[in-house]
Amino acid sequence: MTILESIRGPRDLKALSEAELGELSDEIREFLVHAVARTGGHLGPNLGVVELSVALHRVFESPVDRIVWDTGHQSYVHKLLTGRQDFSKLRGKGGLSGYPSREESAHDIVENSHASTALGWADGLAKARQVRGEEGCVVAVIGDGALTGGMAWEALNNIAAARDRPLIIVVNDNERSYAPTIGGLADHLATLRTTDGYERFLAWGKEVLLRTPLVGGTVYESLHGAKKGFKDAFAPQGMFEDLGLKYVGPIDGHDIGAVESALRRAKRFHGPVLVHCRTEKGRGCEPALAHEEDHFHTVGVMDPLTCEPLAPSAGPSWTSVFGDEIVRIGEERADVVAITAAMLHPVGLGRFAERFPDRVWDVGIAEQHAVVSAAGLATGGLHPVVAVYATFLNRAFDQLLMDVALHRCGVTFVLDRAGVTGVDGPSHNGVWDLSVLQVVPGLRIAAPRDADQLRAQLREAVACDDAPTLVRFPKESVGPSVPAVDRVGGLDVLRGDDGEPDVLLVAVGVMAPVCLQAADLLGARGLTCTVVDPRWVKPVDPALAPLAARHRIVAVVEDNSRAAGVGAAVELALRDADVDVPVRRFGIPEQFLAHAKRGEVLADIGLTPVEVAGRISASLALGEAGDTPAGPRANGGQDGRTAVPAKERTP
Amino acid sequence: MTILESIRGPRDLKALSEAELGELSDEIREFLVHAVARTGGHLGPNLGVVELSVALHRVFESPVDRIVWDTGHQSYVHKLLTGRQDFSKLRGKGGLSGYPSREESAHDIVENSHASTALGWADGLAKARQVRGEEGCVVAVIGDGALTGGMAWEALNNIAAARDRPLIIVVNDNERSYAPTIGGLADHLATLRTTDGYERFLAWGKEVLLRTPLVGGTVYESLHGAKKGFKDAFAPQGMFEDLGLKYVGPIDGHDIGAVESALRRAKRFHGPVLVHCRTEKGRGCEPALAHEEDHFHTVGVMDPLTCEPLAPSAGPSWTSVFGDEIVRIGEERADVVAITAAMLHPVGLGRFAERFPDRVWDVGIAEQHAVVSAAGLATGGLHPVVAVYATFLNRAFDQLLMDVALHRCGVTFVLDRAGVTGVDGPSHNGVWDLSVLQVVPGLRIAAPRDADQLRAQLREAVACDDAPTLVRFPKESVGPSVPAVDRVGGLDVLRGDDGEPDVLLVAVGVMAPVCLQAADLLGARGLTCTVVDPRWVKPVDPALAPLAARHRIVAVVEDNSRAAGVGAAVELALRDADVDVPVRRFGIPEQFLAHAKRGEVLADIGLTPVEVAGRISASLALGEAGDTPAGPRANGGQDGRTAVPAKERTP
Repeated sequence: MTILESIRGPRDLKALSEAELGELSDEIREFLVHAVARTGGHLGPNLGVVELSVALHRVFESPVDRIVWDTGHQSYVHKLLTGRQDFSKLRGKGGLSGYPSREESAHDIVENSHASTALGWADGLAKARQVRGEEGCVVAVIGDGALTGGMAWEALNNIAAARDRPLIIVVNDNERSYAPTIGGLADHLATLRTTDGYERFLAWGKEVLLRTPLVGGTVYESLHGAKKGFKDAFAPQGMFEDLGLKYVGPIDGHDIGAVESALRRAKRFHGPVLVHCRTEKGRGCEPALAHEEDHFHTVGVMDPLTCEPLAPSAGPSWTSVFGDEIVRIGEERADVVAITAAMLHPVGLGRFAERFPDRVWDVGIAEQHAVVSAAGLATGGLHPVVAVYATFLNRAFDQLLMDVALHRCGVTFVLDRAGVTGVDGPSHNGVWDLSVLQVVPGLRIAAPRDADQLRAQLREAVACDDAPTLVRFPKESVGPSVPAVDRVGGLDVLRGDDGEPDVLLVAVGVMAPVCLQAADLLGARGLTCTVVDPRWVKPVDPALAPLAARHRIVAVVEDNSRAAGVGAAVELALRDADVDVPVRRFGIPEQFLAHAKRGEVLADIGLTPVEVAGRISASLALGEAGDTPAGPRANGGQDGRTAVPAKERTP
Repeated sequence: MTILESIRGPRDLKALSEAELGELSDEIREFLVHAVARTGGHLGPNLGVVELSVALHRVFESPVDRIVWDTGHQSYVHKLLTGRQDFSKLRGKGGLSGYPSREESAHDIVENSHASTALGWADGLAKARQVRGEEGCVVAVIGDGALTGGMAWEALNNIAAARDRPLIIVVNDNERSYAPTIGGLADHLATLRTTDGYERFLAWGKEVLLRTPLVGGTVYESLHGAKKGFKDAFAPQGMFEDLGLKYVGPIDGHDIGAVESALRRAKRFHGPVLVHCRTEKGRGCEPALAHEEDHFHTVGVMDPLTCEPLAPSAGPSWTSVFGDEIVRIGEERADVVAITAAMLHPVGLGRFAERFPDRVWDVGIAEQHAVVSAAGLATGGLHPVVAVYATFLNRAFDQLLMDVALHRCGVTFVLDRAGVTGVDGPSHNGVWDLSVLQVVPGLRIAAPRDADQLRAQLREAVACDDAPTLVRFPKESVGPSVPAVDRVGGLDVLRGDDGEPDVLLVAVGVMAPVCLQAADLLGARGLTCTVVDPRWVKPVDPALAPLAARHRIVAVVEDNSRAAGVGAAVELALRDADVDVPVRRFGIPEQFLAHAKRGEVLADIGLTPVEVAGRISASLALGEAGDTPAGPRANGGQDGRTAVPAKERTP
């Protein structure tokens, strides 16, 4: 039995000797590399927090003490130390989540993996403790990258204001978020890291200065009031202490003894404390350390020894198609610039940055700033392309509405990872954009169905300089081209049955193949179908209502929330035109989606050709028979309530 | 002719003598008090920036130099100095906007009045200048209150990172946002304000220390490297300089000469500079200064001499009904706590704070933190009530979705100023919440129609401890009670015509009287109506679909975006139940609403009983006749496209 296997919970850590702790750390790293190699996952960040996690669980009594992990992908070690060592199905259906999970453990608090939240959660937890008169520490662990997010600042400002409310902030400073951390703060942290200890200087300085006479005393005495300024010069914790936070550090985050000692000091201090730990992302894994781009931030399935990827590439990704095309556009237009929120490579801007280093900005984990600064760039005469994961745009909804759209700025948003993303669980799905953004006046939204369309629609989007545009595409490899057979208004017709077809399937972006297969299934049941790809899903094309009026039923299929998405917009456009053809919406039901492969998730929620076809034919049968179809089920995200026939009409 | 009247543009300021500038400032204050007394508006903030605005326009060459005003309600003086002196219809239909407006002037840049955006806009503008190789300064004017917002931090971090990109940040430090500014930053600014000038100390210190010998040189020399630390001790600009921003200040913001001198220094420095100006909100107006709550942040129509309100009170406000009831709830439940984002009194939490000072937190202009810390409070065993203006909740959408809803936290959101607010223009309307929040799993939303319902539904909301709830109500005085005549499922029936009525009107909250009047109009045309108030508009009550099935048409009327709002949710619920009764949605069309009185706005967009009734009867006539009704117009936010009759069905 290894030491790791003997750890059933945090208590088992307390009796270990220094040597055993070292051995445990080695075992954990070995475990992480082998486990993550089998399933894929966040390797680099977890290799960096081995000793930090061990020290935290030795000093604090979780779950009575509350340890809040920011951007929970750094919680693998925490999982191992709190009774969760079966990583065989990590991020897979029924397996461990890649993030903290309250369902898994009482030691877990924050499940979502949007960055910069831990300090706010901790502030709330600490306030609750104070109001309820409860004992126990609240500890937030946050990366230096996440400190660039506005939420972290808002929280620091509040935490610092309450000098009598204990709260420990552990800054896990590895100089990176996904990529190296940017901005004034990063420079400040670098200064802190590279400064000799203040105490060492003080011992020397005091001795010298005490011997130096000055009018009215010694230099030392007259500088007594200047202590803080002095301290800043030699260990400039200035910023945090200026805000009112006690600063402890910098600490070597791989020295368990040093970290424990700092945490114990922090625990004794009855107020807000910041403990600054330096760590190394990818620690102990040579290929990770050698990987400059991201130190193995996330890896796919790989060989545990060589760390070479094992999964065959499934062809070019949507990201790379965008990444190549935006370079071509950049060659043609000098006014096109790009913005990333700490994810240059994951959003496909790496080549653009190489080619046009002065026309791309990494703003940090700061989506709000990405969007508001884009409004400024557009007003200043450029055309910014803001490339983010779909789920993270939710952080900047107000800025998109108020700064970009209200001012009719020509900004193009490129949403990667739109739709169901799968293994990263509920907080990484990009299934809200087509709903939330419906209210934004003037915004045009494209959902390309294949690589050709992505290239074409990206160009159409960037060509619009007096209103915001948005192009969204999914995570997986881009599939084969889906040809159009006709064009009606702005709609691509992907399949057009002769005569007066029964069903109009409106396929949003990547749902085109699902709709075409559903049409085949319906055809086999004798129902004729038209399948259209609206290309631009907002605004709804004026050609859609008259087209819909020539069908018996309309189905809108989108990889997005059913509530208020494209389906809702289509229905509004039809009703505004007094077209009252029945509409059925297929998409993501009102629920958070647990981690599993994308296909498994889609099957679970019934977003498949079989379910779509089944639901449509049941509705048509009902319309004909005037009564309830045989056992409608919760397919296509429908809620399966017993159908109620419409009142008979007398003309 | 006064000096003010002689100012046609910023250039006219340059020739004025010091004495004339003083006279001009007096004239401006006199003008502001009299003008705002006539129309109502933001008085206190503008009285505070008279000299600052004059100095800015003397030092910089707007609009070539770009002056960005944060939270544009402080732009009245700027308007007076840039050719806009007709304040007679300020904030009224066709009159000057209460905020900057690009339509009004080339000197205006940012129109929206959500706080903390100016630095991000300025960063974008400065980057654009750099890329395009243009000359000219970019200046952002931001209050100390707005610095508590996360966007300001994200921007500072980016601005500071580019040492060679000129950008001037003017901090207008009046120690308040609406209320006194809170947090560690406020304490830090206070330290800066109360510290003697560094330069004065340095002149003295250098002389003394140069004469003091030390091993290997003088104390001064050996402390040369410590200059920054030293500087911090006597003018601890630490925080900003630590980030990499040059700090100039503190400056008396009412001394035009001092401000000009500081701005000229900042202009010469080719990098990011922060100029810290102290000002007094309400300056020069005794009643404003004496008004402790907010120094006349906003005033209604008042007597210009006594500053006593002139408009008769129209009865209790929605805000006060909430404010009273939450105190009663607080008496009954010790676990109910409250959060405000720098607007304690405007959102009605004043009495709660007096009664339970330890159970309320002002988090600053920091909606993200308000919401994420609420998740922490709920997880810690309390029931937080987050009270904000509806429009500002857009800042915290991601936190509501990811932190509160994903974790099923029992947090109650109270949205004041929901719906069309009117005079404050496009950015203050609260017309998006019912759309944007449709996607949030588990969230329940109440739209009370009167004071009794607000009290009742607030209690129902706070009683829910395992999921988020939201109660939204408008700005104006609460109207008379609207009694229910029946209850069907969870729906209040407000009017039930006998037999098989033609029209089902679904009245969302405050639209109940509009629907009842529309029903009267329809009744006069021989159409029978049911009017229901769903009370809880999310989720849609299961009783609605079977009820709808017994009508010929359903109309949903909401004070919210038509795109994806309650209308869309109702339609989804009906179609999921295979109820295909025609639905018509009435609400805010996809546009930003210019400033005007609420009633004027509603009339302009056709959200009136006449328009609702007209549209419904036209649709019914069309359904009967099978052809286009006589001239449908853009009523009820409908887009007025020519109606297309649905395809004839053969059963």
